[in-house]
Amino acid sequence: MKVGIIMGSKSDLPILEQTAEILTELDVEHEMTVVSAHRTPDRMVEYARSARGRGIGVIVAGAGGAAHLPGMVASLTSLPVVGVPVKSSNSIDGWDSILSILQMPSGIPVATVALDGGRNAGLLAARILSSSNAPLAERLDAYADGLRDKVMDTVDVVEAKGRQIQKG
Amino acid sequence: MKVGIIMGSKSDLPILEQTAEILTELDVEHEMTVVSAHRTPDRMVEYARSARGRGIGVIVAGAGGAAHLPGMVASLTSLPVVGVPVKSSNSIDGWDSILSILQMPSGIPVATVALDGGRNAGLLAARILSSSNAPLAERLDAYADGLRDKVMDTVDVVEAKGRQIQKG
Amino acid sequence: MKVGIIMGSKSDLPILEQTAEILTELDVEHEMTVVSAHRTPDRMVEYARSARGRGIGVIVAGAGGAAHLPGMVASLTSLPVVGVPVKSSNSIDGWDSILSILQMPSGIPVATVALDGGRNAGLLAARILSSSNAPLAERLDAYADGLRDKVMDTVDVVEAKGRQIQKG
Amino acid sequence: MKVGIIMGSKSDLPILEQTAEILTELDVEHEMTVVSAHRTPDRMVEYARSARGRGIGVIVAGAGGAAHLPGMVASLTSLPVVGVPVKSSNSIDGWDSILSILQMPSGIPVATVALDGGRNAGLLAARILSSSNAPLAERLDAYADGLRDKVMDTVDVVEAKGRQIQKG
Amino acid sequence: MKVGIIMGSKSDLPILEQTAEILTELDVEHEMTVVSAHRTPDRMVEYARSARGRGIGVIVAGAGGAAHLPGMVASLTSLPVVGVPVKSSNSIDGWDSILSILQMPSGIPVATVALDGGRNAGLLAARILSSSNAPLAERLDAYADGLRDKVMDTVDVVEAKGRQIQKG
Amino acid sequence: MKVGIIMGSKSDLPILEQTAEILTELDVEHEMTVVSAHRTPDRMVEYARSARGRGIGVIVAGAGGAAHLPGMVASLTSLPVVGVPVKSSNSIDGWDSILSILQMPSGIPVATVALDGGRNAGLLAARILSSSNAPLAERLDAYADGLRDKVMDTVDVVEAKGRQIQKG
Amino acid sequence: MKVGIIMGSKSDLPILEQTAEILTELDVEHEMTVVSAHRTPDRMVEYARSARGRGIGVIVAGAGGAAHLPGMVASLTSLPVVGVPVKSSNSIDGWDSILSILQMPSGIPVATVALDGGRNAGLLAARILSSSNAPLAERLDAYADGLRDKVMDTVDVVEAKGRQIQKG
Amino acid sequence: MKVGIIMGSKSDLPILEQTAEILTELDVEHEMTVVSAHRTPDRMVEYARSARGRGIGVIVAGAGGAAHLPGMVASLTSLPVVGVPVKSSNSIDGWDSILSILQMPSGIPVATVALDGGRNAGLLAARILSSSNAPLAERLDAYADGLRDKVMDTVDVVEAKGRQIQKG
Repeated sequence: MKVGIIMGSKSDLPILEQTAEILTELDVEHEMTVVSAHRTPDRMVEYARSARGRGIGVIVAGAGGAAHLPGMVASLTSLPVVGVPVKSSNSIDGWDSILSILQMPSGIPVATVALDGGRNAGLLAARILSSSNAPLAERLDAYADGLRDKVMDTVDVVEAKGRQIQKG
Repeated sequence: MKVGIIMGSKSDLPILEQTAEILTELDVEHEMTVVSAHRTPDRMVEYARSARGRGIGVIVAGAGGAAHLPGMVASLTSLPVVGVPVKSSNSIDGWDSILSILQMPSGIPVATVALDGGRNAGLLAARILSSSNAPLAERLDAYADGLRDKVMDTVDVVEAKGRQIQKG
Repeated sequence: MKVGIIMGSKSDLPILEQTAEILTELDVEHEMTVVSAHRTPDRMVEYARSARGRGIGVIVAGAGGAAHLPGMVASLTSLPVVGVPVKSSNSIDGWDSILSILQMPSGIPVATVALDGGRNAGLLAARILSSSNAPLAERLDAYADGLRDKVMDTVDVVEAKGRQIQKG
Repeated sequence: MKVGIIMGSKSDLPILEQTAEILTELDVEHEMTVVSAHRTPDRMVEYARSARGRGIGVIVAGAGGAAHLPGMVASLTSLPVVGVPVKSSNSIDGWDSILSILQMPSGIPVATVALDGGRNAGLLAARILSSSNAPLAERLDAYADGLRDKVMDTVDVVEAKGRQIQKG
Repeated sequence: MKVGIIMGSKSDLPILEQTAEILTELDVEHEMTVVSAHRTPDRMVEYARSARGRGIGVIVAGAGGAAHLPGMVASLTSLPVVGVPVKSSNSIDGWDSILSILQMPSGIPVATVALDGGRNAGLLAARILSSSNAPLAERLDAYADGLRDKVMDTVDVVEAKGRQIQKG
Repeated sequence: MKVGIIMGSKSDLPILEQTAEILTELDVEHEMTVVSAHRTPDRMVEYARSARGRGIGVIVAGAGGAAHLPGMVASLTSLPVVGVPVKSSNSIDGWDSILSILQMPSGIPVATVALDGGRNAGLLAARILSSSNAPLAERLDAYADGLRDKVMDTVDVVEAKGRQIQKG
Repeated sequence: MKVGIIMGSKSDLPILEQTAEILTELDVEHEMTVVSAHRTPDRMVEYARSARGRGIGVIVAGAGGAAHLPGMVASLTSLPVVGVPVKSSNSIDGWDSILSILQMPSGIPVATVALDGGRNAGLLAARILSSSNAPLAERLDAYADGLRDKVMDTVDVVEAKGRQIQKG
Repeated sequence: MKVGIIMGSKSDLPILEQTAEILTELDVEHEMTVVSAHRTPDRMVEYARSARGRGIGVIVAGAGGAAHLPGMVASLTSLPVVGVPVKSSNSIDGWDSILSILQMPSGIPVATVALDGGRNAGLLAARILSSSNAPLAERLDAYADGLRDKVMDTVDVVEAKGRQIQKG
């Protein structure tokens, strides 16, 4: 099953390409395109309604400001939709993006990740697909091991810095 | 020309009926119905696209939480759309409603009024129609006179209270 | 596959039982218990690490205030974790609950839903499981039809109210 | 009918000239000047009271900080007033500008657009005038088509980027 | 010299009458009336411009929501203007009232007090007049002594409660 | 060593008596009184400067609104000072209390606990004293066991509720 | 009568020297120094208590972060105290500075001006002294005329820009 | 007794090394390392549970975004835990870091210091240890004297600047 990645504007690409990159890293098939809720509403309706039939298992949708794309797509499909609030140039520190994605009314859920959380959106999509894909679950566990190892790689430097400061 | 009043849920009625009431008071024709961006997306598309052809000159749209109705309607028509942020029960003090209506991306404007500002939405719709309707402009001027008179009616009471406190 | 529903405190039950109810309505198996990140940390570790092995496909975790349960559980499993910010009595209008669940660092995603969004958490869990469960996808589509029908049931009342106000 | 564009300070010009530009693009007559609520109160009263008589159909007013210009002008005319909150240097991330324009008391509406939304203010003014101006409505529809086309022009680049990332 | 107390609406009276009361307590002459920036703009201009000539030494102005009264009055007189943000029913937790009074542009100061701080507005007005009124300065010092004494009166009760809890 | 508990006003007592209660529960000596930074500044200076000499090892200070007591006391002693932001009646949802206690300048630390966190202030004071008091450390460990046990006591009820909902 | 200008740290000088500059411009005597509530509490007490006796008529106090200086000074004198919230490097966008100065408890008023409003603090101090100083009132009126003239000087440029855009 | 300094990521080092530096300045033993709640949960459990036994008297824990490290560590030890909210690159102006550290549930206290308050965290740790360490208390008093002296060193410069501006 594929992950469909969409964004409201090409200017969101730096965030959403992180979604594509982690999915490639985890060997999860994906496709990426631009779908604007406000400027291409017909395209949005068609994209969302045909997604499940085209083999898409999760949709990741990113947008900024009054971000209606994730919620509108979620109202047009029963697939899980991951929303990525983007701190775009016209956003008020990201609060508008977050609230207009997160605070969906009862009945239409969107799985919201952190502001500019393109990478976490990809990881969440992979976790979702891993429920019925044991090898992917193993790759996710290996990814978590990698995170731990990267932290451990910094331990020596930080501890040495501490000892150096201790000596004065 | 008529004003079309829509709301995302019947629970928004106490706010939007204020829109209808002031329009009736100003002798502006209007019609009111329920259109949900998330639960009746097809109905929303049809409503917005047919509005101008049906003699509607302004659309007033109210919704709460992640309020996508005003912005989505504005993307589906070139009529002026007035957005009313509603402080619904699932709203975070109204901030989500305000930001998801106000912060529209460049290209798709929504005329946002104050939180729960149903009455002002009606007055704004009337002002919009008054550009090409001189008698309506006169009724709006008379309405403003009425506001002034109501304030003046409270002057005596407040001044008397002041004198009473002054005397101790 | 089951949905595991956990909450940081019994006081979160009114929100999380909505998760259980919608899952029952959608015929999705679930189990519910109390797991506190701060008061039962060992229990949390054991719960999260054993979840996939016990046939759980999605974990829904609700908590309020400085809500660490969803994020900590997500760091201990590779299953998808849905976080429900709860506006508990000690919360600052829910902002603390939302931000401490939503703003997870890169590498550890949590699928955050709206404040007090217990019902949407259940719907999101069902959508997640529906990727590999066609009959569940159909039940979700039927649920969406039901939402639409409920909106349509209110149309007559609201339109009549509009006509009544129009007449003055 | 003309659009009158006013700003509280010359420093607001970069935002308000976007209003003028889109109006020119849509072939809507406009005029632009400086009117300060706090520094030229008499000029403000005269501007607002004479506007309708001088052939102005919509006023667009932009200001920052404790932004009183749009609301005060709205209290001095029955024309529709579009308020543009400007994120000026002395503003607290724009919140003061937004709230002091948006939260007008019942009776005096201001049509607020997004923070720094000069372009949307012009589009909203054009939509308002289009109610009684069919050719302008057609130009607005063509403008929306142009927005859609610009989005479609980015589809190939984004999809290619997605395929490239997919290949690793 | 007198203190002029004004409010945007009679609904602000419960806050502003506290201003009058403390001024009476401090034996400072005052007068109180209703002046609305938006509904009686001409009255506002006349009030502010004539104030100094009528023997007013300080103006206290209270308003809620998009509160323009204190700032507009300050632009129409060179008297010190004390602004009282009122948490009115249509206010967003008072933030709109505070920001639209506090964040005045350079050149036009308003002396803002706490949200609903009617009493402190009166005390500030008295302090202002005390610069050139030694007996009033003495009454203010006595008032401060009274505050201290009232705190001291609660010491015994609180200390006893502490001892009682200590004993278990 | 004793814990000194102080509050800016008797109205803070419901929060601060929770501090006293948990300290009694943990068998930590304490004393409680009223000290106002603004109304009894001399008393505050004397209290803070004499505290260490009187056998106080930690000061817990609670206040609301523009809460200066904890920070001012911290500037007058080198003892650890625990600040409790109180959501008093004149507070803006507690934000003023939190920020005016938390955001102390470099050089003068205050140990801030959650809004209305009287109980946690007492626990923090006990943890502070436990560094050099092994039996107190043991009582704190037992307290943590008690928290865990109270959570475990709710497990059966919540799990039964889950099974009941599962059955429909 | 003099204005006493104080600041919590030399780093606040760029804001507070604006206070001094406008006072010099208005020919109001002033003196400026550093007084830290947290680092020089004794100096603060002495400064505030002796101020009126030394011929000071208004105190302007600026500080950032958890800004206790204006409020503490106001509790130690009955002179009017103008508080200037400074957006210092350790401030959270200025919100902490604003709230810890503005939200003073009942009984101790501080006249708060806008964030970084050093110039307005000076103008407010001058307005305060003008109550009993007619020539200063005249200089303030002339200053307001100057503000108006500066706005009028920008009218031609902005109107020309509008005409240029109009022509396309 | 030692202070244990931990951080969620090496990127927090610029803040936490300030903690180490002030502790060295005050001659308090300390050690510093990296412990991530989300990426090394087992390491966190082991660190926290063994801390008291290894001679640690206070733990200082810094983290950004959804910052769970301080609170989770506090749930795993009865030592006092000082939490340092870090304004990391993925933080929303620091609000998420602050709220997810500060708003701990009843039973598990964290001593929160200001945003990026690494230096104050070290000073608070020293104050905590000073309860049972008289020479350290003296060094803290000397440190406070040093703060006062540094302020006094700036008095001449600021006063001279004031006199220079006074002369015009």
